[in-house]
Amino acid sequence: MRMRKKKNLDTRFAACANVMITEPQMQKGKWHEVFSNENPIHLEIGCGKGRFIMEMAKRHPDINFVAVEREEGALIMATEKARELELSNLKFMSFDAAELGDVFEHEEVDRIYLNFSDPWPPNRQRRRRLTHADYLDVYNNILRETGDLCFKTDNQRLFEWSISSICEYGWLVQNISLDLHNSELAKDNIMTEYEEKFSSQGFRIYRLEARRRLPQFMDRRRPVRKPE
Amino acid sequence: MRMRKKKNLDTRFAACANVMITEPQMQKGKWHEVFSNENPIHLEIGCGKGRFIMEMAKRHPDINFVAVEREEGALIMATEKARELELSNLKFMSFDAAELGDVFEHEEVDRIYLNFSDPWPPNRQRRRRLTHADYLDVYNNILRETGDLCFKTDNQRLFEWSISSICEYGWLVQNISLDLHNSELAKDNIMTEYEEKFSSQGFRIYRLEARRRLPQFMDRRRPVRKPE
Repeated sequence: MRMRKKKNLDTRFAACANVMITEPQMQKGKWHEVFSNENPIHLEIGCGKGRFIMEMAKRHPDINFVAVEREEGALIMATEKARELELSNLKFMSFDAAELGDVFEHEEVDRIYLNFSDPWPPNRQRRRRLTHADYLDVYNNILRETGDLCFKTDNQRLFEWSISSICEYGWLVQNISLDLHNSELAKDNIMTEYEEKFSSQGFRIYRLEARRRLPQFMDRRRPVRKPE
Repeated sequence: MRMRKKKNLDTRFAACANVMITEPQMQKGKWHEVFSNENPIHLEIGCGKGRFIMEMAKRHPDINFVAVEREEGALIMATEKARELELSNLKFMSFDAAELGDVFEHEEVDRIYLNFSDPWPPNRQRRRRLTHADYLDVYNNILRETGDLCFKTDNQRLFEWSISSICEYGWLVQNISLDLHNSELAKDNIMTEYEEKFSSQGFRIYRLEARRRLPQFMDRRRPVRKPE
């Protein structure tokens, strides 16, 4: 499954053992043992070079962060930097998002972050988008009942499509921002490397939160008045 | 209920009798008799000076259009212009959107247009927004099962809020455009007076379609795999 783009990656990853989870499936249902505490677990899918998740881990020592990245050229840059930070609440792993149900137990995760995910523009590739129903099924399984998904992107088409996908899936879409950097959420926003580059070029950043529809919100519609 | 801002409005409205419905409740369940055909009925709530709905009626002679406007200073401008057009498929009325269930029978309407509705910015006034659940209840009652709501606005905050409101209500949000005038929908778009003014100043126009969740789409979620 791994793509070898750089030589000596094995050696370099081995040197990052303190921040890497090399056999993620072995931790399923036992992530609180990995972190030696009962703190909430926040998962970033597609962490790239890791700037976002490292800053989050620094700011929130009472939350455990797990960062997933398939592209090992990016992941090694994240782990080599994280190793120096010595953050006990941050772990990295290389894994396929579609299989995260093998890594986390039912409701083991409290929040999922998707930051600037690949838009997979052709319609025939829509199943690869991380907001497709197939992935929402994965999140729906591993997320705690009151957990949420935080998604941001600069890709207008992906954002438009994702809103429809999430709504159709039956989740709620909340706290939408169609211009994050000019919204009240901007002050607490941690920019990814990619985000800083594109927003500085004047592109808007879009953000939403999605969550399961809890029973008390199941149906706000009044009964339809049928003709007598 | 009417607000008299101009003198001689009664006289002027009387001269527009051929395009006005003066007792809308009397037509409930009988709109096809008003138009003397069985064509679909499309309703615009808040037609302003009527440019959008007049152009729609010209382009689509096989659809019956009903335009609602509470502000009579705008409505008289619409009706005086429409009178000259002699369009048999367009009628206007002054009515409160919250009470449209008194004017249309269950499932009597095929499509509802909301164009540049008042955003009612303060949160305490959110119940007045035409995409609030209270209004969605009205639409849910009068719209045909496969009917839809087409909403466009330049107001970013209203659009963000409306997506959440519609999704929470349980309807689907589809064909979202976060920049209508630069999308593939632009070529068929009919601009309102307001839209032309604000888009020419560089403001984005947002658009979405919302529809009832039909039984075949009720639940796309796979069953959650609970731990054994």
